Amino acid sequence: MSLIDALNWRYAVKKMNGQPVEQEKVDQIIKAASLAPTSSGLQPFKVIVITNQELKEKIAPIAFNQSQVIDSSHLLVFAAQENYTEEGIDAVFNRMNTERGLPLETTDDYKNQLKGMILSRSAEENFNHAAKQAYIAFGIALAEAASLKVDATPMEGFNASQLDELLGLGEKHLKSVTLLPLGYRDEAGDWLVNLKKVRKPLNEFVIEYK
Amino acid sequence: MSLIDALNWRYAVKKMNGQPVEQEKVDQIIKAASLAPTSSGLQPFKVIVITNQELKEKIAPIAFNQSQVIDSSHLLVFAAQENYTEEGIDAVFNRMNTERGLPLETTDDYKNQLKGMILSRSAEENFNHAAKQAYIAFGIALAEAASLKVDATPMEGFNASQLDELLGLGEKHLKSVTLLPLGYRDEAGDWLVNLKKVRKPLNEFVIEYK
Repeated sequence: MSLIDALNWRYAVKKMNGQPVEQEKVDQIIKAASLAPTSSGLQPFKVIVITNQELKEKIAPIAFNQSQVIDSSHLLVFAAQENYTEEGIDAVFNRMNTERGLPLETTDDYKNQLKGMILSRSAEENFNHAAKQAYIAFGIALAEAASLKVDATPMEGFNASQLDELLGLGEKHLKSVTLLPLGYRDEAGDWLVNLKKVRKPLNEFVIEYK
Repeated sequence: MSLIDALNWRYAVKKMNGQPVEQEKVDQIIKAASLAPTSSGLQPFKVIVITNQELKEKIAPIAFNQSQVIDSSHLLVFAAQENYTEEGIDAVFNRMNTERGLPLETTDDYKNQLKGMILSRSAEENFNHAAKQAYIAFGIALAEAASLKVDATPMEGFNASQLDELLGLGEKHLKSVTLLPLGYRDEAGDWLVNLKKVRKPLNEFVIEYK
């Protein structure tokens, strides 16, 4: 199945059937998210994987009682860094050079320029920047799930600060940005399953400069 | 090739060889971006496709003279709406209901609630929200390009307001958020092509609540 076919197959499942997603497939979805490109390779976000049913039940009311939170087998939470730190940037470049067999100072000019730019921005700007990187990975995780015929419902509709408190994300200097429950569609119970996927026609979506 | 293999194959190409990408493949990358899920299906962004060489040459200095801007055959610009509008939201729901053969008023309760929320937010909040939707599509476009073995370089490093002015995006109520030059890697001339792809180990990337 081509990725286009997979993207046509997927939709924002409204009702899942409770069948668990195979761990191997979940691992591939997470792997895909980790392979997403991010600004200067900083990967300023984490993927939280929740399989604890009690915890999912506590999250449901925070997410307007959308049933997929409870009926998914794995609830992914994409959480972005509240800010960038000098130590975090150093760690990324040190790992990169080490794994490439290069001296640690190879990238010092670039790294120092990057630090100058990033560390002079406000925490809010940096969180927004980090969140956008998380959204790239979120898109790629959605594509990977579809390519494995795993259903997923991208969700922004939840109270992020309540979820952050429940998961103790503040201590980890993270803030939740999106949810991605994974499971399988309930063909009989989902009102959306048979409705046509609708998108803007390409002439409204694309602008060409030839 | 699995999507994971494609994601491992891709990297942020630093030097392209000038070989043009087949239009059919470009069309599939744009199609994938248009299939990306967005909040309430609003698709609050456009993909600008630039093949005009003179225009790419004007963009190069705005993008710190990164050579891929000029050496790509198709330069994609993802541009998000400055804000949401009532008319825009109406158009999306009217099209959705029409294409699904449903009465236009089917979704009125949901639509009015959505309008209440969105139209009470500041333009800045709405632009940030729209930009994040564009990043989902950006991630999916990157995945599609990789799955077609088309090279692409995700770029945030450019002066967005200068680019907006050059392209006249203000009149279209759009602001550029990312660039995605498409082309083919120059195996001989790209310093990055043979360096190992480095990511955080999964135990630093994933948090589990079992």
